[in-house]
Amino acid sequence: MSDPIVNFLSKYIELTNEEIDILSNQNLIQSYKKGTILLSEGQIAKECYFIMQGCVSSYYLVDGEVKITEFFTESQPITPVSYTTKKPSEYYLECLEDCIISIGTPESSTELMKKLPRLAALGSNIMEDQLAHQRMKYDDFIKLSPEDRYINLQKTSPDLLNRVPQYLIASYLGIKPESLSRVRKRLYKKSKS
Amino acid sequence: MSDPIVNFLSKYIELTNEEIDILSNQNLIQSYKKGTILLSEGQIAKECYFIMQGCVSSYYLVDGEVKITEFFTESQPITPVSYTTKKPSEYYLECLEDCIISIGTPESSTELMKKLPRLAALGSNIMEDQLAHQRMKYDDFIKLSPEDRYINLQKTSPDLLNRVPQYLIASYLGIKPESLSRVRKRLYKKSKS
Repeated sequence: MSDPIVNFLSKYIELTNEEIDILSNQNLIQSYKKGTILLSEGQIAKECYFIMQGCVSSYYLVDGEVKITEFFTESQPITPVSYTTKKPSEYYLECLEDCIISIGTPESSTELMKKLPRLAALGSNIMEDQLAHQRMKYDDFIKLSPEDRYINLQKTSPDLLNRVPQYLIASYLGIKPESLSRVRKRLYKKSKS
Repeated sequence: MSDPIVNFLSKYIELTNEEIDILSNQNLIQSYKKGTILLSEGQIAKECYFIMQGCVSSYYLVDGEVKITEFFTESQPITPVSYTTKKPSEYYLECLEDCIISIGTPESSTELMKKLPRLAALGSNIMEDQLAHQRMKYDDFIKLSPEDRYINLQKTSPDLLNRVPQYLIASYLGIKPESLSRVRKRLYKKSKS
């Protein structure tokens, strides 16, 4: 039961051994070196991903500046907007660490859903969860100060803060690296007083 | 074919007359006066919505200040995060105009999906579209300046700018009403030069 995909799905359904077998045999697993670009701006995404191990960032290049919008880590699915819309991607996906990733294509997904009808029925539940998550993320960005967003990140993804360079964390929070240093100093002082 | 729900679904599927009949009879349609709060902070959402007519805002109250996160208008579905998570809502839904709204509950949705199996199969496609939309919205907020966000809004939802008070538009863009006035003046001058 240590397969990240099985772990992910077990939030929604108790898989039978047969289903686990089908899942494990179906998957196309790939290794990528740190720095690999999985998707570039302008490219149409033909694959979706599920991270078995490692960390992937999504970002825009705006006038040469990197604007991080998400970090994905173990047991997280990545469905590029371009995979859904079939239009050229506006953003990049890049491996921030060496990664092991399970790859999905429209064909392999259709195939898998035929073999695992119980899973197909779950599709909209999983989407619904992801949609709620994405809404909350947007809302947090609107309603929280950068300091509160940092505190949030500490709570929800403490490991990220050690895995990812600070300037990328700053970009994700929508602030300059200098401001992030100030936020961290302020919080450190608070925790000591 | 002027039923907004039928219009919405026809992006995904060509409905038969029988399906249209079932849809029209199934729906619980309600009228709400401008100013009605459909969902309050702290309340668990038991309904989801589809706007037939009118405009609904979602917002947070942060230290007494309204932070608008979305405007919903005709032919848009609203699935409150709290409806999905079954936890108390962190935000409000309020009718900004007199509204006519189709109400869904977990029971009525299950019932409808039984009667319309072709629709049930669409669930994850619709969710996928909404997820892509929500991602792009977040990304725009991260990568665009307030001025560019305003230009975006002019393009994608020109009617909103006339229907909604300017201070709510400013809140939605994450800026002060004074800054929105400056943005509008600047854009007006540009358009004249």
